[in-house]
Parts: sequence; structure tokens; C-alpha cells
Amino acid sequence: MMIMMAPEASPEQIRQVVARLEATGTVHPKVVPGASQIAVAAIGDAAAVRGLGLQALDGVDQVVPLSRPYKLASSELSHHAPSVFDIAGRRIGPDTFCIVAGPCTVESREQTLRVAEAVAPHAGMLRGGAFKPRTSPFSFKGLGRPALEILAEARERTGLPVVTELTDLQQADAVAEVADVIQIGARNMQNYALLEVAGKLGRPVLLKRGLSSTLEELLMAADYVLKEGTDEVVLCERGIRTFETATRFTLDLGAIPWLKLHTHLPVIVDPSHAAGDRRLVEALARGAAAVGADGIIVEVHDEPEQAMCDGPQQLRTRDFPRFATEVLAHAALVGRRPSTG
Amino acid sequence: MMIMMAPEASPEQIRQVVARLEATGTVHPKVVPGASQIAVAAIGDAAAVRGLGLQALDGVDQVVPLSRPYKLASSELSHHAPSVFDIAGRRIGPDTFCIVAGPCTVESREQTLRVAEAVAPHAGMLRGGAFKPRTSPFSFKGLGRPALEILAEARERTGLPVVTELTDLQQADAVAEVADVIQIGARNMQNYALLEVAGKLGRPVLLKRGLSSTLEELLMAADYVLKEGTDEVVLCERGIRTFETATRFTLDLGAIPWLKLHTHLPVIVDPSHAAGDRRLVEALARGAAAVGADGIIVEVHDEPEQAMCDGPQQLRTRDFPRFATEVLAHAALVGRRPSTG
Amino acid sequence: MMIMMAPEASPEQIRQVVARLEATGTVHPKVVPGASQIAVAAIGDAAAVRGLGLQALDGVDQVVPLSRPYKLASSELSHHAPSVFDIAGRRIGPDTFCIVAGPCTVESREQTLRVAEAVAPHAGMLRGGAFKPRTSPFSFKGLGRPALEILAEARERTGLPVVTELTDLQQADAVAEVADVIQIGARNMQNYALLEVAGKLGRPVLLKRGLSSTLEELLMAADYVLKEGTDEVVLCERGIRTFETATRFTLDLGAIPWLKLHTHLPVIVDPSHAAGDRRLVEALARGAAAVGADGIIVEVHDEPEQAMCDGPQQLRTRDFPRFATEVLAHAALVGRRPSTG
Amino acid sequence: MMIMMAPEASPEQIRQVVARLEATGTVHPKVVPGASQIAVAAIGDAAAVRGLGLQALDGVDQVVPLSRPYKLASSELSHHAPSVFDIAGRRIGPDTFCIVAGPCTVESREQTLRVAEAVAPHAGMLRGGAFKPRTSPFSFKGLGRPALEILAEARERTGLPVVTELTDLQQADAVAEVADVIQIGARNMQNYALLEVAGKLGRPVLLKRGLSSTLEELLMAADYVLKEGTDEVVLCERGIRTFETATRFTLDLGAIPWLKLHTHLPVIVDPSHAAGDRRLVEALARGAAAVGADGIIVEVHDEPEQAMCDGPQQLRTRDFPRFATEVLAHAALVGRRPSTG
Repeated sequence: MMIMMAPEASPEQIRQVVARLEATGTVHPKVVPGASQIAVAAIGDAAAVRGLGLQALDGVDQVVPLSRPYKLASSELSHHAPSVFDIAGRRIGPDTFCIVAGPCTVESREQTLRVAEAVAPHAGMLRGGAFKPRTSPFSFKGLGRPALEILAEARERTGLPVVTELTDLQQADAVAEVADVIQIGARNMQNYALLEVAGKLGRPVLLKRGLSSTLEELLMAADYVLKEGTDEVVLCERGIRTFETATRFTLDLGAIPWLKLHTHLPVIVDPSHAAGDRRLVEALARGAAAVGADGIIVEVHDEPEQAMCDGPQQLRTRDFPRFATEVLAHAALVGRRPSTG
Repeated sequence: MMIMMAPEASPEQIRQVVARLEATGTVHPKVVPGASQIAVAAIGDAAAVRGLGLQALDGVDQVVPLSRPYKLASSELSHHAPSVFDIAGRRIGPDTFCIVAGPCTVESREQTLRVAEAVAPHAGMLRGGAFKPRTSPFSFKGLGRPALEILAEARERTGLPVVTELTDLQQADAVAEVADVIQIGARNMQNYALLEVAGKLGRPVLLKRGLSSTLEELLMAADYVLKEGTDEVVLCERGIRTFETATRFTLDLGAIPWLKLHTHLPVIVDPSHAAGDRRLVEALARGAAAVGADGIIVEVHDEPEQAMCDGPQQLRTRDFPRFATEVLAHAALVGRRPSTG
Repeated sequence: MMIMMAPEASPEQIRQVVARLEATGTVHPKVVPGASQIAVAAIGDAAAVRGLGLQALDGVDQVVPLSRPYKLASSELSHHAPSVFDIAGRRIGPDTFCIVAGPCTVESREQTLRVAEAVAPHAGMLRGGAFKPRTSPFSFKGLGRPALEILAEARERTGLPVVTELTDLQQADAVAEVADVIQIGARNMQNYALLEVAGKLGRPVLLKRGLSSTLEELLMAADYVLKEGTDEVVLCERGIRTFETATRFTLDLGAIPWLKLHTHLPVIVDPSHAAGDRRLVEALARGAAAVGADGIIVEVHDEPEQAMCDGPQQLRTRDFPRFATEVLAHAALVGRRPSTG
Repeated sequence: MMIMMAPEASPEQIRQVVARLEATGTVHPKVVPGASQIAVAAIGDAAAVRGLGLQALDGVDQVVPLSRPYKLASSELSHHAPSVFDIAGRRIGPDTFCIVAGPCTVESREQTLRVAEAVAPHAGMLRGGAFKPRTSPFSFKGLGRPALEILAEARERTGLPVVTELTDLQQADAVAEVADVIQIGARNMQNYALLEVAGKLGRPVLLKRGLSSTLEELLMAADYVLKEGTDEVVLCERGIRTFETATRFTLDLGAIPWLKLHTHLPVIVDPSHAAGDRRLVEALARGAAAVGADGIIVEVHDEPEQAMCDGPQQLRTRDFPRFATEVLAHAALVGRRPSTG
């Protein structure tokens, strides 16, 4: 339920409403500022909310239902305005386009610094995996904590904020110490214990859609993070699993305009994992800009043939400037400027 | 197998090769002109071709295998150059972007003429269903033959070539008489009897991908049409069936760059059926242009609320000019001019 | 809508109702006998039916809606009783289990007769393809009409009724002359022109589920056949296309109990095409019997290694007797006796 | 790689091989006893294994590759014999059929004890959720630790071993204290941190297939658990996500015979979650027995209409005896006796 406060409601009246909701023990209240009036979202036990008779309280305008299965991520909650985040000086929102670029995996200090410096002029953030979730336990799983230090050094040199994945809640503090944005990977999209920990770290979270998760499930997963206190969740479409095997996954670009109608959260696109083939990545990145994404996250390597992971899909550093220019041209057509520092 | 003729091979030498292949009874030969040399594709029984010892013939340079399961549609067959078609004065190929627009179904003379005139300044062709395949036999199935006459009249008034669907080989002649392009719908992509008839009508064919057909299967379906003599087959991605139900189908825009690597045939995109919701169509159409499609096919209606079929996904005629302008801007960025008359 | 006639309604009163429905021009009436009262199903334009005011007519008990998107196939139409068919002396229905067996393709007279004689003691019907739909136009497509004669000879020798596929309406009469049951393959499940022709041939129809057709779509496809006059449509689950490639298709055995709740038509299972691997076929056939299917259709070959089509999935004739015995034991547990001659 | 020891190899020679493999730092060695000879599986860096020249050591017969992407779960590793586990007196393996039954969620002491007592005569184990992973964070998530005490009491009263889910590694010790079998749910199948913790708890693990995980991925997930020391992993097919929505998920019964060919681990089936509808559960449970599963896990409630979770799919306690009898009859036909205490 949404308790719409009257435009003239006092802070004390709002506190009253929140207090009554909290007293139920089964409702999660959240104050939502709007252009002309403040609302209090009351999420959880709707019967308990109705039982409180809040519409009779001073300062309450009306009580309306939240109609969707996702609540905190819903555009209903934001009065249908898109959220804008400032992340370490990079703006993510409807007027900008943010290119997150970097190697799939931090393989060495030299490789990471080389790639970071190559992408820095055009990218908005640096990506790089320290802990890699792998299908087989006998595959290379990343350098771990030493990789975090390398990413911190790359940030210092280039000024690029760092996006890196958290796979295990036992590493949460170590990752949060370095990361500007904490990535939750597709395989962990419904690892609810991890989502709740990620929501408590005080960092923005990049939440990737699961391989076969519906968009409603993605938004409910975002609710897990948002209810822990973080306001800044960025969604990421990265391809879904279908019968088609010509591409590694089927990139669902139709998800972007759908999400724009249903959530206030920004959405970026990962064309690298979906394509699984470097030759398709640029076309998909242009498509992502054209359908209205708020950015992309792409893998770049200086020697993809030598990469320890996902070599065939990583762009070459020497191709990156032209790549970025072309993608940003499509973003400009839909009113977005580059989200660089 | 491909028999690559020497650059200096004579027409008689080429005829010899073709004659030997035909004499096997199990091989389908096709002469393929190239920039510097002519090839003869020998499709079917590879063992029979090898048995002919063609590499010993005068004028034959070498015999190389066609490595893919699709043959006539393969980019291997075109020496990796994209095909360009001129269809009733409209160019379909790598330098142009063709917007095929019109109502889902021809509902009446007035509605069809109104829509045709509204789209004419920006569209390359007119679409409109006379025979509609419907999931239930008790749904409206189109006006049938009278609709063909209405489409012919709309063409006369606007100059737009007509694209309309063939659903039943018993209507093949009637449809071919009016249509400039014969559409084969998604549900008939593997209706091989219909494909073979369509290939014999002397008209270009627009072949839509089946709801759950792989891209390889789409190209093999194109082979069915191409082997009957038609050279002009245009492919159409229109969304595939996946677990996701937020959109009606999942538009597979990654299919476009993949097809560009693997076939010489043009590819257009149908954003209307994939989205099932007007509010998503423009974003997907822009995305189609950005990923490198050769055009789009969209449904437009003057009163979508009154449409007999698929109302919610049809664009409004009053929104069409702005829609077309925005989509063509993205096409221009990738080097394509409008394919108008 | 269903017009439920009073138990004492006269034939003339029923004719009256049918005549009024027909006079609308937009309604398809069908008389449905029941245990205690007769109903007239009025399919199509529900508004027109309501406009007739039939509940005021003598002999009419009440007018109730048909709530499902499929009509003639719905269990609502049969007063929730399963249909039982007698096909050339074989019973298909809730008390029997029919094993349809034979080669994928009729390759030669000798092979077909050998297989037919091997399966005759345990099978209820003989399957064999004369016309094979193939993904590539350059693959072997069956012997065509000569194969029909071979099947007729095999029937004469063994007494087994013949099931064979119709792929092209131009062959409808030739196939109907030989076939006891006309099969419509998965790729043609939504080839509506073919369904309508099949429904007019006066033969039972075996309708296979499309690779990615929902169960509701399967029942609406059955409606296409049923509305042409044939009452005997047998459905066939043969595996659907999913992300999993370990098996060729994913056999949806859950479809069987769902169909039993929603349609009166019999349902059989094709474990051969779903598995694509002989080693899995017996387990799936046992599973089909246990979930309540009315039969199975399996491919059997005397030398699968030499088969022209689908060799790896065809059972060996020498394994067939044991196979049939094991499957029939599971069928017996759910109250079904073998449907043999 | 597999190092096959000679039949006469001494324990010291085997220790030598293991020591050399461990010394590489990149290989995981595992001793695998067989009927006539012992093998040492060397999993991980194959190049390092080849570099050791083990075939020259005394006691080594030969070095052969492990050809599949999953290693410890592979039937290659078990010399193609199925594993048999004794879990708290219940036998899981090729000669038995184990029915795991109980409520979806532990809702109260009374409800749990009532259900446990009702299923005890026919079931092999008791299931019940203490911690429930829920798609929305605002849904009921189980009673938590108090539920574990209730399950322990139910075990004491009925003698049924307890299966319960671990969703968060922070609860690992609490769950392991009570559970006889630790369940990993479908959404956590690729939560690798959780798999590794589960593998260290000294308890058998029931690993459910992810909603859209391939069978190869399921076996690689099992490798994550097995490499931590647990030998007893039971797999569970519970339905995959496909385009079909008539049933909640598509139960992939073809997975069972495929898994029997490729892994030595037992496999059970969850028909309740796949069906999502009580009326389909019995048919699917019979099917599971007939295709060769080692058991089933089903949800049973005394008042499903009042259930806090998944009511429509829970069997009624009063129907359970007949249900179990029918399912066990199909299991008996394939040579399996009930796995009761």
C-alpha cells in the first residue's frame, strides 16, 4: 500500500504514519519524496495496513494499493520518475550513457593497467573480475584478493570507478573496501542471502538478470537489495537462455523499454556475454544505445587470444576507441551524453 | 561442394560442369557469378560430386566443400558479398533501410487507403493481411480475395509496392497476381510444400522466422524457396518464444549481426509482433536499425482501438512520421539511406 | 456458448436451435449428445448467440458459456467424458494402450515388411513415412507414392492399420486412400490449410504437437480438424524445444495428465523423436504408460545403423518384444489392456 | 585424467601417485576403488598431470583422460557402477525407491507432526522447509530455527530421517545439526560458495537442478560438493522453465535415463513443484518411478487450502497411502522395493 500524504503534511505527521506501520511488525515502511507530495510505501502485510485506518489520520491524503509484485523497484514508488545516481562522479540516468569497460578477469597487474589506460578516455567505469563464478570447480576462478589491489591501483591511475563482482558473502567486506559498484552476477540473482548482504554494504549494486529469470523476478531481486537500505541499484540485461545456440545467449533488448515503463532503476546491457563472439558485440552495443539503455558493460582485452576466460568475446583494446565512438553516436541520438568523469 | 571455375573459363566449360552435375540425378547445380571468377554450387549428394572427378576438367580451378548445412542462402555461395534486390523500384540491401508499414489486416477499403496514404511519404512498401493465419479456427481470418483488390488500389494511389501473406497454396495464384512481395508467416516457415510453391511464383519472398526456429533452420527454409528459382528472399526476425512473457515474444536482435556473417540475404525486423505493445515498438525499431537490419515491417492503424486484430501493438498513423524519422536517423548512422521510391 | 437442451427436448426443437444458429452466418453449431441431455455447441460469435434469445425457445434448458479458448476439443464439450475411437478394429481410449510401431521411413519393400512382421504380435498399428518433411531441401524426403503401396501390402500381410504422414495437401487423396490414420507432423501443427484438408478426408487424424506449441494451441489446432467433420483426432506429445540439448527434445510428460483434464481426445506419446537416442526410449515409453497416455508411437528398424533417417533413435526389431512387454506392464497397472486386433 | 593402478599395486604406490599429484598445486586427486583395480582421478590441470610422467611409475597401469566436463560425478569415475548410499538406515540406489514426503514448509509443531505421522508408514524420509527462499522479500520465509527443532521432534516420533533446505551459509551449522540430508534448492544450484560449504558439513546433500540448468551444469554443480569431501550427493529433477505455462514447470523425465547413463549418483524427482497442481502430481510420480528414478520428493499437507505456501500443489494426507501404493507398484515393476526403515 502507498500512504499518500497531503501536500501540507508535517514531518511529525509523516513520522506518525511510519511509526504505526512499524508497530505492526509485519510491514516495511519507506518514505518516498515526490514533486508535490510525500508518500509512505507500506510493504508487506496489506491486511495489517488496512486495519490501521490510516486514512483517518491528520496529514494523510489517501491510501492506494501498490499493484505490482515488485514494490521498491516499481516505477509506482517513484511517482513514475526515473532515478538518477551519481557514482563516484559518474552520472547514471536518463541523460547520460555510461560505458563500463575492462577485462573479463584481472589476470595480472600489467594486463589490467594496460587495458584500464586504453579504455579510460572513453569509458565511464572500469570492470574486472577478482572472484569468478565458474561452472566447473576445476576451472580458473580468478586471482581473488590480490586482484582487488590491482583494481584499486588501476582506479588510482585512471580515475575510473571500479565495478567488481561479489560471489561469496564471506568476501563482502574485502570487495566493498575496493569496489565503487558491487556486481551481483546472473547465477546469484536469486541468492537471497547474498543480495541482502550486498544491500548493507553502503555501495551501489549492479544486479545482473539471471539466465532464465523473468523481468518481474529481476525487479523482486532488486527489492531484496533495496530493502536493506541501498537506494542505488543498477539493473543489467545480459542475455537469456533460449533454444537458440547460434549466439551464446539471446540478448533481450525488448527488456529495456519494458523496464523503463515498470521501474525507476537504471538499466545497462552486457553485449559481451550474450554474444560470446567479438564480431557481434559492436552491433549489439549500438542496439543497446538505440533502445534506450543507460549504458553498457563490455569486456576488453589487449590480447584476447591469451585471455584466461572468455577470450573470443572480448573486444581488442585497439578497437575500443572506434567502438565507443559509434555506440555513443547512437546514444546521442536519443539524448544522452557520455557519462565520463 | 563448390566448383570454382578458372577466371578464363568459357561459357561452354561452365555448361559442361552443370550438365555433368545434372546427370547424376541427385545433385542440384547452381551457377554463382563472382567478382573475378564464376562458381557452380553442387548441392545434394556430395559423394556423387566427388565421383565425377570434376577437378580434371578444363576450366575448373578447384572443388571445395560447402561447409554449412544451408547452401543457397549461405554467404559462402555469394563469395561473402551481401545481395542487393530491386523490388518494384525499392532497393533492399546494405546501403538502404526499408520501412514496410501498413495495417495488420485489411479491414475495409477506407481504413486501408487512409493508412496507406498516411505512411506513403516515409515508407518503402505497404503491408496488409488479406489471409490471416489464426490460432483458433473461430477467429476472424481476414477478408480474403476482396482484400487483395483493396491492396492493389492502395498501391495504385500511393505507389507503394505491396507485401501480403500467402497461407494456403490454393491461393498462390491469386496472391501472386497482386503481391509485389509474398510473405510467408512464422507458422509456415517449415511448411515445405508452401515454400516450394512460393519459390515458383516469380515474386520476391519475405520469409519470417518461426517462433522457435533456429537461425540455421531459417536459412534451410530459405534454401527451399531459393532452389525453386527465386533469387530474392528477404528474411525477417519477428521474435522467438521463450520463458519470458513480459513481452509477447523475445525479439532476437543478436540474430541480425549473426545472419550478416552467415548469409548474403537481406534481413528485416518485425518489432510489432515481438513487442505486442505499441509503447515498446519504437525503441525496438530504433534498435533494429542500429544493429544493422536492412529494414523493418511495422503495423500501423488509424484507430488501433477498433482494430480487428492485434490492436494494442499497432502504431497510430499520426505518430508514424515522427517514428519513421527517428528510426531512419539511426539507420543513417550506420550508412543507410531511406529505401523510398 | 453451449445451449443445453431439456432432457425431454424433441429432435425438431434441436433442429430449430441449430437452424437459428446457422442463420447468423457467424456461428458454427455442433450437436453434442450426452448421458442425460443433448447440448448444442455454438462456436464463434458469442454476441450473435446472445442476441438470439435462445433460452426462451421451447426445449431449451439453459445457455452457458464455453469458457476455454479451444472449443470442439474441450472436455466441456463432451460433458467431461473421454472419447473412445474404434480405428480399423483397434480401440483407442481410457481402457486400452495402443503401441504404434514401425520404421521412421519406408526405405524399401523388404525392410518395411520385415519390420511390420516383427512388430505385429505386440503392436496395435503400423507407422511408416512415405513423405518426410526435412529441414534441408537437399535431404532424402521419402519414397513418396510407392511407399504408400508398400504400406498397404504390409497391412495386408499383418493386419495392422497404417499411420502415415500427410505433408502437402496436393497428396491428400493419395495418402487418404491408403492411410487408416492420417498423421499431421509437428512442423505442420499450425499449417491451417493442411489441417482443414485433413479434417475433410473421412479418416482419423493423428495430430502431433508443434516443437514449441503450447497445449492450448494444440487443442485449437485440433479444433481446425474437428470443425471439418472428423470426430476422431488423436493428439501426440513428441517433445518440445527447450534450452536443454542433452536430449533431442524435452518430452513433456506432464502434458498428458493436463490434457486428460482439459480435452476428451485421446493422447499418445512419441518417445523416439524426443529422445533421439535409443537407450532412452524404453524408459520414456514406460513413463508414458505410467502417466496415463493412451498409447505410444515408436520407431523400429531391423538395421538402425543403415537407416536413411533417424537411425540412432530407432529400436531394434529384436528388442521390440521385450520392450512392448515392459511398457504394457506399466499400462496394465493403470487399468489398460493392449489395443491389439 | 584417470591414473589406473595395476591390480597388484600396493597402498604405498597409490600414496606415491597421490603425493605427486598434490605436489603440482593445480590438480585435485581422488582415489576411486573399483572391482578389480583402483584408480586415482587427477582433476584439474591436465597438462601438469601429463608432465609428471606417471605411467613410468611402479604400480601404474595406464593414464587415460576423463572425457566429460564433469569429473567426480561422472559414471566414468565409478567404473560405470551406480552409487548406493545408506542414509540413516534408508537405502538410496538401484534396488530401492525412496519417497521423501512432508509439508512444503514447517508452519507449526502440530501441523508438522500430523503430516509426519500420516506419511510415516509409506515414506522413506521426511521433508519440511525451515528456511524458504522466496521470490519477493516481502513473502513469508519460513519459521527459521524453531522449525528445525520441530523437525527434530518429528524425526524422534516417526523415525523418519529429515531433509531440509540450506539457503544461507550463515545457517550451515544450525541446519547440519538437525538435517540428515541437506537440500540445496534450485535457485542456489550455482551458488558455488554455498555448495562448497554444504560439501564440508559431513551430511549427504540433495542437489536440485536449477530452473534452467543443463544436465551437464547439474553434474558440474555436484562436482563442487563432491570435491569438498562428501561422497553422498543425490540429484533431483524438479522441472525446468520453458515456454509452456499450462504446468508450472516442465518436468524433464527424459533427464532420468540420461543421468543414469552419465553419472553414478542417484536421482530423485520432485513432481510437486513441476506440476503446481495437485491433480497432476500422482501421474508424474508414477512416471518418475517408471522411467527409473531412485525416488521422489513430494509435498503433503493435512489442510492444503490453509497452507502458507504452495497449497494447490500439496497432496492431502488422506490421499497419501493410496498415492504411495500406486507409485510403489510402478517402482516394483522396474525392480525396486520401498526404501523404508
